[in-house]
Amino acid sequence: MNIQQLGRHILVEMYNCDKEILNNHKLIEGYMNEAAEKSGATIVQSVFHMFNPWGVSGAVIIQESHLTIHTWPEYGYAAIDLFTCGDSVDPWIGLDYLKTMLKSNKIEIKDIIRGETSKIRYFSNERFQNMHFKPINLEENND
Amino acid sequence: MNIQQLGRHILVEMYNCDKEILNNHKLIEGYMNEAAEKSGATIVQSVFHMFNPWGVSGAVIIQESHLTIHTWPEYGYAAIDLFTCGDSVDPWIGLDYLKTMLKSNKIEIKDIIRGETSKIRYFSNERFQNMHFKPINLEENND
Repeated sequence: MNIQQLGRHILVEMYNCDKEILNNHKLIEGYMNEAAEKSGATIVQSVFHMFNPWGVSGAVIIQESHLTIHTWPEYGYAAIDLFTCGDSVDPWIGLDYLKTMLKSNKIEIKDIIRGETSKIRYFSNERFQNMHFKPINLEENND
Repeated sequence: MNIQQLGRHILVEMYNCDKEILNNHKLIEGYMNEAAEKSGATIVQSVFHMFNPWGVSGAVIIQESHLTIHTWPEYGYAAIDLFTCGDSVDPWIGLDYLKTMLKSNKIEIKDIIRGETSKIRYFSNERFQNMHFKPINLEENND
């Protein structure tokens, strides 16, 4: 069976990470951007913030959707999302990289279908033909 | 039964939205920011991009985690995430607002536990006491 979907969304619970790394927003931003690139994604913009007394939150917007992270250094825990679309990106490579860099010894993963094309067709009044993924010849346009 | 979790992550498949709205990144950014505020979240930063030939991607980083959206105007479909932590935010209010503004007549929801405290304890070598949510007396610090 081959389910056609517009996006794939991998939700990762990352336990027992290095606490100092989880609290360093420069490192985390660098790792998240590197993870996007290693996955084959094209980075559009990256925004990261550090909170007092602890924790980093950030998102990397990619042409193929996004990566996000929220860290709880005090518990060694990070919630990571890798949302991608298209066949040119392999989020598992980015995930492997992040697991290594954050020094986690235990992760849990949910792999969620986003935009299942059969459902989009079913719930719509239109008859879409040849539904396709983004990006197709993407050119950024921020006008 | 009361499951304690650091974050709540609501994944929304929004079908049959207004196609013109889905392709207007100024409107989408405004709606997403308004959804965050209506939910009781504190906005840290908002980043939105429009892609050629179509589609909007964006994230609103909030002190309590994030909201994201990716739209496929041609199919009337949007993938929306509302990731919140703490008890002061009610993401369902934001979701209701977005459903109305995007004129969707059909949504599907997954409500995912992020950072279940019993698992964090189980997988850790430490004995965490009184695990708590963020934010607590949050002050933004972007040094």
